[in-house]
Amino acid sequence: MTNEDHDDSYVVGVDFGTLSGRAVVVRVSDGAELGSAVSVYPHAVIDEVLPGTGERLPPEWALQVPTDYVHVLRTAVPEALRESGVAPGQVVGIATDFTACTMVPTLADGTPLCETADFASEPHAYVKLWRHHAAQGQADRINALADERGEQWLGRYGGLISSEWEFAKGLQILEEAPAVYAAMAHFVELADWIVWQLCGEYVRNACSAGYKGIYQDGEYPSRDFLTALDPRFAGFVEDKLEHRIGQLGEPAGHLTAEAASWTGLPEGIVVAVGNVDAHVSAPAAQAVEPGQLVAIMGTSTCHVLSSAVLRDVPGMCGVVDGGIIPGLWGYEAGQSGVGDIFGWFVQTCVPPQYHAAAEQAGVSVHEHLTELAAAQPIGAHGLLALDWHSGNRSTLVDHELSGLVVGQTLATLPEDTYRALLESTAFGARVIVEAFRGAGVPVTEFIVAGGLLRNPLLMQIYADVLNLPLSAVKSGQGPALGAAIHAAVAAGAYPDIRKAAQAMGGRTVGAFTPVPENVAAYDELYAEYLALHDHFGRGGNDVMRRLKTIRRKALS
Amino acid sequence: MTNEDHDDSYVVGVDFGTLSGRAVVVRVSDGAELGSAVSVYPHAVIDEVLPGTGERLPPEWALQVPTDYVHVLRTAVPEALRESGVAPGQVVGIATDFTACTMVPTLADGTPLCETADFASEPHAYVKLWRHHAAQGQADRINALADERGEQWLGRYGGLISSEWEFAKGLQILEEAPAVYAAMAHFVELADWIVWQLCGEYVRNACSAGYKGIYQDGEYPSRDFLTALDPRFAGFVEDKLEHRIGQLGEPAGHLTAEAASWTGLPEGIVVAVGNVDAHVSAPAAQAVEPGQLVAIMGTSTCHVLSSAVLRDVPGMCGVVDGGIIPGLWGYEAGQSGVGDIFGWFVQTCVPPQYHAAAEQAGVSVHEHLTELAAAQPIGAHGLLALDWHSGNRSTLVDHELSGLVVGQTLATLPEDTYRALLESTAFGARVIVEAFRGAGVPVTEFIVAGGLLRNPLLMQIYADVLNLPLSAVKSGQGPALGAAIHAAVAAGAYPDIRKAAQAMGGRTVGAFTPVPENVAAYDELYAEYLALHDHFGRGGNDVMRRLKTIRRKALS
Repeated sequence: MTNEDHDDSYVVGVDFGTLSGRAVVVRVSDGAELGSAVSVYPHAVIDEVLPGTGERLPPEWALQVPTDYVHVLRTAVPEALRESGVAPGQVVGIATDFTACTMVPTLADGTPLCETADFASEPHAYVKLWRHHAAQGQADRINALADERGEQWLGRYGGLISSEWEFAKGLQILEEAPAVYAAMAHFVELADWIVWQLCGEYVRNACSAGYKGIYQDGEYPSRDFLTALDPRFAGFVEDKLEHRIGQLGEPAGHLTAEAASWTGLPEGIVVAVGNVDAHVSAPAAQAVEPGQLVAIMGTSTCHVLSSAVLRDVPGMCGVVDGGIIPGLWGYEAGQSGVGDIFGWFVQTCVPPQYHAAAEQAGVSVHEHLTELAAAQPIGAHGLLALDWHSGNRSTLVDHELSGLVVGQTLATLPEDTYRALLESTAFGARVIVEAFRGAGVPVTEFIVAGGLLRNPLLMQIYADVLNLPLSAVKSGQGPALGAAIHAAVAAGAYPDIRKAAQAMGGRTVGAFTPVPENVAAYDELYAEYLALHDHFGRGGNDVMRRLKTIRRKALS
Repeated sequence: MTNEDHDDSYVVGVDFGTLSGRAVVVRVSDGAELGSAVSVYPHAVIDEVLPGTGERLPPEWALQVPTDYVHVLRTAVPEALRESGVAPGQVVGIATDFTACTMVPTLADGTPLCETADFASEPHAYVKLWRHHAAQGQADRINALADERGEQWLGRYGGLISSEWEFAKGLQILEEAPAVYAAMAHFVELADWIVWQLCGEYVRNACSAGYKGIYQDGEYPSRDFLTALDPRFAGFVEDKLEHRIGQLGEPAGHLTAEAASWTGLPEGIVVAVGNVDAHVSAPAAQAVEPGQLVAIMGTSTCHVLSSAVLRDVPGMCGVVDGGIIPGLWGYEAGQSGVGDIFGWFVQTCVPPQYHAAAEQAGVSVHEHLTELAAAQPIGAHGLLALDWHSGNRSTLVDHELSGLVVGQTLATLPEDTYRALLESTAFGARVIVEAFRGAGVPVTEFIVAGGLLRNPLLMQIYADVLNLPLSAVKSGQGPALGAAIHAAVAAGAYPDIRKAAQAMGGRTVGAFTPVPENVAAYDELYAEYLALHDHFGRGGNDVMRRLKTIRRKALS
């Protein structure tokens, strides 16, 4: 099949985010995005009171309602199709990506337990969103036991699994709601549940099974391990989790009549295996070769990187065979606070005169601060910050860490601290890149996707700090485009994701290039960052952890 | 003489500050303040351009004009007298206090060189205000040489003399304006110059000679030392500095006819030996016994403490025999940033919604933040700060240090950081108190004077952090009252400053008392403060110094 063969073919990608879903209609031949639409989840994130029950949720909970996702299929997909002007008959496939690890307990036929009469009022029967953090105790016990027993899989996750993941969330249900645990036939990633709704087939995608389900080298954690954790949890894998694995870009099945009626797409078109939002961005950015790291930079940053080599990289989130591109090892790392640190600063640390000046200039406070900060020579503010306001996801994997600013004087201005915070996240990114390299996993290109691409000062700082040319993803809706690329592959329009990405994805190579004198200036500051990083992050002074303990005690 | 004997006697105290002078008329019998007036210096602080010359001053310079001080005598004193309703004939004495070390080069008769035709355009001929910091290079060389030679006096100043002091300022004149140096017959503390204007007698007061003039055990630094510094500087002591020393509370002379005409006071009344603003506050606060520490808390804090014992206390500003109260060793220490850190925070780090809420409540932003911060349990904000935004005067004596905040999260609010900054200065004060105690100099009472006394939360934090009951000075114009007390002693109304302070000074003992559970909570946080203090202040990580070096390089 050549490009000309599918000049008239289209695919649909649907990106399920934290608060809304976005559908995009994409031309198979060149990736042109002809129409898109967003649909906001009616129930958003449920983290205070379970609707209809009045029941207050404990802190750290975050639930969702599965019908909200179906609502996206029923509204955003037809609207995007309408906007595109593409005839439904020209659409040859659909694919999705989802937040992860977002989980729901279901009956054998995929019906969420929260939709059954028995469990409609039971919080544990609902979708547990990725940022449901109430299973930390379970995660801690899993980690301690795995470390004690020397479980091989632990190294694949940098030495620690997260409270966000399948085993921690599953164990929490067992311990806190044994009736729900007993009634659930499957504990399903929403990335796979939504595909199940589209094609009537339950296929576990290799990406979330690997990163979130501890599925490594064809095996889950052993029954022995689970028994040691809790004898009642011994059957978790066989009874609740285990299912056929689908590789990325493979067909999961074909669109059912019901799903065709929701979406307005033809019954029987290909539905691709599910995927995860960050990872699916890689083909949209043409990052399909070893060494290409994609940083999806928004409130937080997720890094995905494919490699021909398998290494244990200390402190990363995970490495999965085919986790991003089949045939390569897919690595994931992350910075838990990036854009949200800048947002916090603008919200709570910028005085009225700056807000007034921004308003007068007709720009946002972010833009005003950026303009002022951009005029400074590197190091002129005299500050250094640690970017741990939301903890550290990689490479320290410690959410008890916190932010730090050093160097303030009575002459320190808001733009000084703002710039220092921008820089701190670039230093944080460099720690991750150097951790990969230090473990023998090459990083040769840094490709940026996500909303922060809009800040050119931030991008130049990253190029200078990393001493790497930055590429920029072209699409403004990378995950949805990435999903569409998977749909095209599943539909057989391309032989594999690599070829499809070359035709349909897009990036601007060398969008920002390092300036040698800036690189030298930042090398000096990075050395200072590293010294603080190690002192406060690796046991030199555990004051951050102690301050959090004192805080909790004071507030209790 | 008993109290009844001077029921109808009054004295005048005049406090010469950085921007204005304040006169107060005080009843000798009980210290009642019957009238006061302020006179602002017409030339304020000259730190940019020398008037009449257009000459730009280098950074760090700060000059004043001597006629501005005479202006205070001519305006504020008569106005205070008028307001008091006291008949001039009832005034039995006058005394002054001044900023220090503030210096002027004069002819043999006390005429400032800047008032001569030859030198009117020469910046070095003007008054160098205490905060003229352009002699740091000279101070560095003096310190290095004194350390190398093992000069005994160095220990009396905690190991370092300041660029603000007489020898550094004098050496700068020699090096940068040798003609001014050659023409000056005396290099005079303004504390003594103003007394010279009042009574026609030049007497060096023991306080500034000791703290600022390195006058210890009846001797200045040796000719040998000065020769080694610079052969041209060999005669600095004999030729420019040395003069009769007057003890505090002694008469320096009697009011001249000219000064009587300026002030409206009777010719011939007693004029007391000069004094320094911080030190003269002690008798106003009734701090005349060993162990009573007075903290004058404003933009910065000055600590003065008398003691029966002489010890070298590392990192303090100085110890002088009779420097505060004749017969006791007077110790001085300081925190270079206190109120100005809180002011900087309110000016540059507080968002519009807080300004709006304060305005709506009809309170200042400081008061609004204080109210919010006061509602928090200790440690609830999860923060810790180092109060070095203006460097550290005691006990690290390092102006290359800077501020630090650790523990910030996306939930950190302005009142959290504000409270952490209040606490950081209290921890800084505790380091000083513990340095005294550690060296064997007891501190038994902490008496607060100055503008920050108005913040009850700050005061309670100090009481809890120091685990000491806080006394509060009663007078709102402590230095001027302290000067008036010295006038009463010089006039013979009391046998000594101790007795005069008991009758005329005033403090509220136990104005704030430590709460045991707060003390325990702060002990835990103080241990964390000390660890950061030592790490960043004592060589664990010299990042603060390096950031300042990088900053200077970037801006040059």
